[in-house]
Amino acid sequence: MPFALDPRLEGDTYLVADWPLCEVRLIKDARYVWLVLVPKRAGVTEIVDLSAIDRVRLSAEIDRAALGLKACVPCDKLNIAALGNMVAQLHVHVIARRKTDAAWPKPVWGLGNPEAYDKAELSGLIARLIAAFDSGGRP
Amino acid sequence: MPFALDPRLEGDTYLVADWPLCEVRLIKDARYVWLVLVPKRAGVTEIVDLSAIDRVRLSAEIDRAALGLKACVPCDKLNIAALGNMVAQLHVHVIARRKTDAAWPKPVWGLGNPEAYDKAELSGLIARLIAAFDSGGRP
Repeated sequence: MPFALDPRLEGDTYLVADWPLCEVRLIKDARYVWLVLVPKRAGVTEIVDLSAIDRVRLSAEIDRAALGLKACVPCDKLNIAALGNMVAQLHVHVIARRKTDAAWPKPVWGLGNPEAYDKAELSGLIARLIAAFDSGGRP
Repeated sequence: MPFALDPRLEGDTYLVADWPLCEVRLIKDARYVWLVLVPKRAGVTEIVDLSAIDRVRLSAEIDRAALGLKACVPCDKLNIAALGNMVAQLHVHVIARRKTDAAWPKPVWGLGNPEAYDKAELSGLIARLIAAFDSGGRP
């Protein structure tokens, strides 16, 4: 069975980067800089269902996403989570939280309504994220 | 600076196991079987602040906790998360979720009030968890 992105994840996100294991996607909600990493493996719902080598890849890609976020957007705390209660396809949230954001200190899920990105702001953010990922989070 | 467990984490949990990197603790809330892994490293708030070798240890210990949970308690979905918005000391939640639990499909944080464990139930659960961890999640 080939990998196919869950339609809900696809509808809620923009594609930012395609890494060895994961698609890196940005949630369509300007209230937070909120990435979702989706391992390109069919039928996987839990991290422990990944192969040992994919598990190593996932850790490395979570770190790469986290360091990139910290390098290019304001971030008081990272939130990293694999929940999957609504969408079973394995996906890992990597979110730059700020003490001034809409949900702080609560988790972001299910609070209020998403806000659309301004198109120019979105293009700039995605470009900065890609540059930060490519530089390993170093300025 | 030596490692010292955050007093709030200590007050909210029972100690279950002491692993090479993490203390494994059970949240005092009988509504969910909810573990927290606390790396025994002083002053660390983010996963990416751990050394490379500790990062590998953390992944392995998260997997060990997850497989143990799946082996010994009912679990429709694992929730694994490093948030730390309330308690900054790095800690990773590993929670066995059920479709019939008090919060499903929402995340567990901040919903309702914790329910105390019955003492006999608690002893049995901790014993089963330790046995499951020691057998690598195999029955």
